[in-house]
Amino acid sequence: MNFASDNAAGAHPAVLDAIRAANEGAVASYGADRWSAELNEALAAWFGRRVFAFPVATGGAANALALSQIAPPWSAVFCHRESHINVDECGAPEFYTGGAKLVVLDGPAAKLAPATVRTALLDHPRGEVHRVQPGAVSITQMTECGTVYRPHEVGALAQIAAGAGIGLHMDGARLCNALVTLGCSPAEVTWKEGVSALSLGFTKNGAIAAEAVVFFDEAVADGFAFRRKRGGHLFSKMRFFSAQMLAMLKDDLWRDLAGAANAAASQLAAILTSSGCTLAFEVEGNEIFARLPRSVADELRKDGARFYPWGPETGDTPLYRFVCSFATREHEISAFRDRLHFQLRRS
Amino acid sequence: MNFASDNAAGAHPAVLDAIRAANEGAVASYGADRWSAELNEALAAWFGRRVFAFPVATGGAANALALSQIAPPWSAVFCHRESHINVDECGAPEFYTGGAKLVVLDGPAAKLAPATVRTALLDHPRGEVHRVQPGAVSITQMTECGTVYRPHEVGALAQIAAGAGIGLHMDGARLCNALVTLGCSPAEVTWKEGVSALSLGFTKNGAIAAEAVVFFDEAVADGFAFRRKRGGHLFSKMRFFSAQMLAMLKDDLWRDLAGAANAAASQLAAILTSSGCTLAFEVEGNEIFARLPRSVADELRKDGARFYPWGPETGDTPLYRFVCSFATREHEISAFRDRLHFQLRRS
Amino acid sequence: MNFASDNAAGAHPAVLDAIRAANEGAVASYGADRWSAELNEALAAWFGRRVFAFPVATGGAANALALSQIAPPWSAVFCHRESHINVDECGAPEFYTGGAKLVVLDGPAAKLAPATVRTALLDHPRGEVHRVQPGAVSITQMTECGTVYRPHEVGALAQIAAGAGIGLHMDGARLCNALVTLGCSPAEVTWKEGVSALSLGFTKNGAIAAEAVVFFDEAVADGFAFRRKRGGHLFSKMRFFSAQMLAMLKDDLWRDLAGAANAAASQLAAILTSSGCTLAFEVEGNEIFARLPRSVADELRKDGARFYPWGPETGDTPLYRFVCSFATREHEISAFRDRLHFQLRRS
Amino acid sequence: MNFASDNAAGAHPAVLDAIRAANEGAVASYGADRWSAELNEALAAWFGRRVFAFPVATGGAANALALSQIAPPWSAVFCHRESHINVDECGAPEFYTGGAKLVVLDGPAAKLAPATVRTALLDHPRGEVHRVQPGAVSITQMTECGTVYRPHEVGALAQIAAGAGIGLHMDGARLCNALVTLGCSPAEVTWKEGVSALSLGFTKNGAIAAEAVVFFDEAVADGFAFRRKRGGHLFSKMRFFSAQMLAMLKDDLWRDLAGAANAAASQLAAILTSSGCTLAFEVEGNEIFARLPRSVADELRKDGARFYPWGPETGDTPLYRFVCSFATREHEISAFRDRLHFQLRRS
Repeated sequence: MNFASDNAAGAHPAVLDAIRAANEGAVASYGADRWSAELNEALAAWFGRRVFAFPVATGGAANALALSQIAPPWSAVFCHRESHINVDECGAPEFYTGGAKLVVLDGPAAKLAPATVRTALLDHPRGEVHRVQPGAVSITQMTECGTVYRPHEVGALAQIAAGAGIGLHMDGARLCNALVTLGCSPAEVTWKEGVSALSLGFTKNGAIAAEAVVFFDEAVADGFAFRRKRGGHLFSKMRFFSAQMLAMLKDDLWRDLAGAANAAASQLAAILTSSGCTLAFEVEGNEIFARLPRSVADELRKDGARFYPWGPETGDTPLYRFVCSFATREHEISAFRDRLHFQLRRS
Repeated sequence: MNFASDNAAGAHPAVLDAIRAANEGAVASYGADRWSAELNEALAAWFGRRVFAFPVATGGAANALALSQIAPPWSAVFCHRESHINVDECGAPEFYTGGAKLVVLDGPAAKLAPATVRTALLDHPRGEVHRVQPGAVSITQMTECGTVYRPHEVGALAQIAAGAGIGLHMDGARLCNALVTLGCSPAEVTWKEGVSALSLGFTKNGAIAAEAVVFFDEAVADGFAFRRKRGGHLFSKMRFFSAQMLAMLKDDLWRDLAGAANAAASQLAAILTSSGCTLAFEVEGNEIFARLPRSVADELRKDGARFYPWGPETGDTPLYRFVCSFATREHEISAFRDRLHFQLRRS
Repeated sequence: MNFASDNAAGAHPAVLDAIRAANEGAVASYGADRWSAELNEALAAWFGRRVFAFPVATGGAANALALSQIAPPWSAVFCHRESHINVDECGAPEFYTGGAKLVVLDGPAAKLAPATVRTALLDHPRGEVHRVQPGAVSITQMTECGTVYRPHEVGALAQIAAGAGIGLHMDGARLCNALVTLGCSPAEVTWKEGVSALSLGFTKNGAIAAEAVVFFDEAVADGFAFRRKRGGHLFSKMRFFSAQMLAMLKDDLWRDLAGAANAAASQLAAILTSSGCTLAFEVEGNEIFARLPRSVADELRKDGARFYPWGPETGDTPLYRFVCSFATREHEISAFRDRLHFQLRRS
Repeated sequence: MNFASDNAAGAHPAVLDAIRAANEGAVASYGADRWSAELNEALAAWFGRRVFAFPVATGGAANALALSQIAPPWSAVFCHRESHINVDECGAPEFYTGGAKLVVLDGPAAKLAPATVRTALLDHPRGEVHRVQPGAVSITQMTECGTVYRPHEVGALAQIAAGAGIGLHMDGARLCNALVTLGCSPAEVTWKEGVSALSLGFTKNGAIAAEAVVFFDEAVADGFAFRRKRGGHLFSKMRFFSAQMLAMLKDDLWRDLAGAANAAASQLAAILTSSGCTLAFEVEGNEIFARLPRSVADELRKDGARFYPWGPETGDTPLYRFVCSFATREHEISAFRDRLHFQLRRS
């Protein structure tokens, strides 16, 4: 009953098999290998166009490096207050950008609304030397509240960004989950809508470490290889990382795994709501945010369930986050259901 | 016949087995797992004392992060001209330290001599506000020229550093190879001789990515967790990286693998010298630097041998580097010998 | 009728005289001169204790350098949304700190309330590796809205900061104006209440460029000389900058000048309110924030009055900022009064 | 008898007069004033073309900011071992560039030879991801050894730089002294020979603080205003700094002052050589580097002469640096001559 994070899950066997299969003897290091070349092909197919992809060690690195490429040190990165880049990366974006300012915006369900971004841009007039300059808009797909931007929503933000002469970054640590929900192609919610830099994550979806910064325009990617290298993110034995991504892309494994995670979350959400718990946000992927009586949450955790409060654990019914993953098992869901029903009856 | 780099080698099967074995279902992420705890124990045993170890993605990251922890942004890091941190990391140390200056020193066989460091320190008087301040001394063990610092040599440099109030950093990307050559314990050539920060690398020795920054003093490590995190080097699924290190430490696998690499290099060196080639440096690990007629080198490469020139490939007999690894096979050595003899005869 | 900024004012003649008097022939550069030594004495007398003062070129540099000294790169600087460091320095604090995050808080009249800071600290738990760590609290005295922190208010914030193990920074670009209003000594509203780093500004109060970072504890100042130097803020001909500060301190010139500015602002405020204009904040120094009919503001500016809208100039009665300085003349005030009355009658 | 530094000199009266004349009442701050506009005109006339000039507080800031504009963080700045940017700025260039590496080159009399730069560039191949990339070549005019680059020498280096796709930076802290020696126009030794970024200094030549970064191409200057601002180098009361530069340019005051300094140095050099002292470098400006018996140097300093050893003060006849300035007086020279002769006779 581990609903703490999709990071808690292990790796999918196909990923481990791919690593083993890549262990073929001596090959060129630092990405000049066969798997890395294939990965470029596979990603081009996946996105329906040539892309410029750079594997890195973590999602945090992907976000920070991507932003450093498009936002100057003296600029503002407009992002949601709840965004991972703002809350959970210990200042990595500020470090990599050389001190760009994350301008924190509010909005329901961790989503940025066009009007909010427009207002924030007005507050950062271009050329005003005392003020940080427009640098980038950054969104998370799927968001930190488990919600999903529709393609037209991404497009609207990208247009506003473009109108200000800046790019749109997408933190796609859970892009696969969003894609399953949207039922659209990767292209339809990224470059076709104007995303300029994407952090593409497969780690939460079943790899051991498979994250990449993806650009869609060669000019935007110019010089990025040096940024990655000096961040210490150019793996010497790159094949073992490229191979993980290849495994996720092969036969749409990513879709099966994200689909399984989303389906598990739907089940869990149904159990929670039918048990009288309120959900704070619509469940559009593999995360559920539910209010539970604190005493019940305590008992469930004593019973072995793993999940975190979302925000301060105060009041009678704090908000809790439940995350499912590709590895969530039927019996975990049903065990949780049983314990939940039991504890609710007792309370 | 791949002697290009020990990075070109794949992974040892035991490392892959360990990764698979760690794929046990949901566990806590970001290092709060069983394997990471075990790694701390195993490293304590290996070093004969409690250590503070932080796995990161690459050796470059380990070096840059380690230096950033001990050398202030306005300081000088004294290092050899040939050192990896100076030549091969695209400025990662400068990036992570916030702009420390690598003060480049010369010395035979890529080793720093005490007198050289002493002179350099004299040139950076403490308190002189116009000059970068003493920050750290950094050495590579085994060096970029395949040579090895004896424990007393490490100690002499550490004492000089300590006398200047700064620490000694060791880039141990090939520490295992040095240990085999020295026949000493890890302790005897690191903390017992005054090393304050160690980049400990197992990747070149058979892992897929197993590098860590190791401190020997809790105070020196203070706050380092935040540096690693904001560098994007805190793996979420840490167990798969801790497990690799554990595999290398278990039953002294590291020693077998480094021993094999060193032995292969000895064989290769013997072949080269008995064929009339001059070695530029003593072979004290898994690297050989030999002068070959350029035409012979060209032919060997056409025959499929992989190795790089060391420095500009000019003159009649340029210098070439040959690197063996745990995976170098007997038949590669003998094939190389045959081709070498053939080409030398022809030339 | 220039109420645009106290930066628009020139210099007080005594400051220029002091510069001229310091032009005495050759003296040691970089602060090893007689004036700089005297400045240390004068500041010690002013603060009633030994201080560690470092002149720099601008108030923005003072703020950014001061913060970089007390807040680590991976930390949060808690400040008001309207604060100069957040709004008007083009990211200088982020640059100098190496990427610290300005956590922006709200509060009436540009003042931070203790409860607000306490809540923000709860949101940044110490040791939580994913979150930037508590770094500093920064307040402006007098604030960007022309209001003044009482000594006990400063003390309350300093205590909260100290409770979190961090320091309190005060942006004192208009400290003199606040001191006049408070009628207290510099000590009583700075170090006696727990301020650890002060940006002390005399430029707005009549110098040409006289700003300094002041620490009250030698340990806190450790290494700061290097930070200043590498920021390019160590003047070679320091005497000409120390002499300006000395002139401001001599015979309490600072008090006369700030007193004149504050008095002018009081007069202007009385004129505005008696003319029916609403003030947005209490006038506690040399700044007034008043709502004027937009048409009237337009006409006044056509008449030659200089002042800026505060926030977007929208609606019928936008908010405008009026700043007086030591150099504001009686006739400017009366001319403004006449034009205001005339335009209000017309409108 | 102060030959310690031209920084030790005070200011020329005309500069102080100009500051006073600029104290005219309220004007727009941050450079939107009449003097700053005039400065742009005056510099355009001086250089014979439109330039993009940005006053900053110090020469160190000018150098570091100029380099940060043309050299990426992952690049190499090729400079002389003795250069001010390498030796005397406490790492300011590394700080402002975000960690660029100063690649230190040797060459007689602190001058870079074309061949040396060419070789260094070969060692930093473009596109090689492990190596810092070519970023800029930086030279000092007049050099730290008092020597002067001829226009064709500047041009040769600029061409090599351009061939590598990078710019040439000139540290012109003593450009005026060089111009007097060369008898050429500012244009002839800067932009006409391919200099892309110039640190233009008037402080050593008689201002209190008058330094600027000058670009000759608008595209190269793009965004620089933000760099300056976030470095804390945008003066609020800019007129007082622009006015200093204007004073130096007016009626070629700069030439008179630098000419006086150079002439004084010539006299001093003649005295030293005729007294049997050896000069280490040709005297081409206001600096002399002479070998003196240490005992004589000691006695001279006891007699009140101010000058510094150049390098370690060891051996019988260490090297000493003597700097003259616009303010060096006839009687200082003759007093020094008398004391020198006296001490030499005694020794």
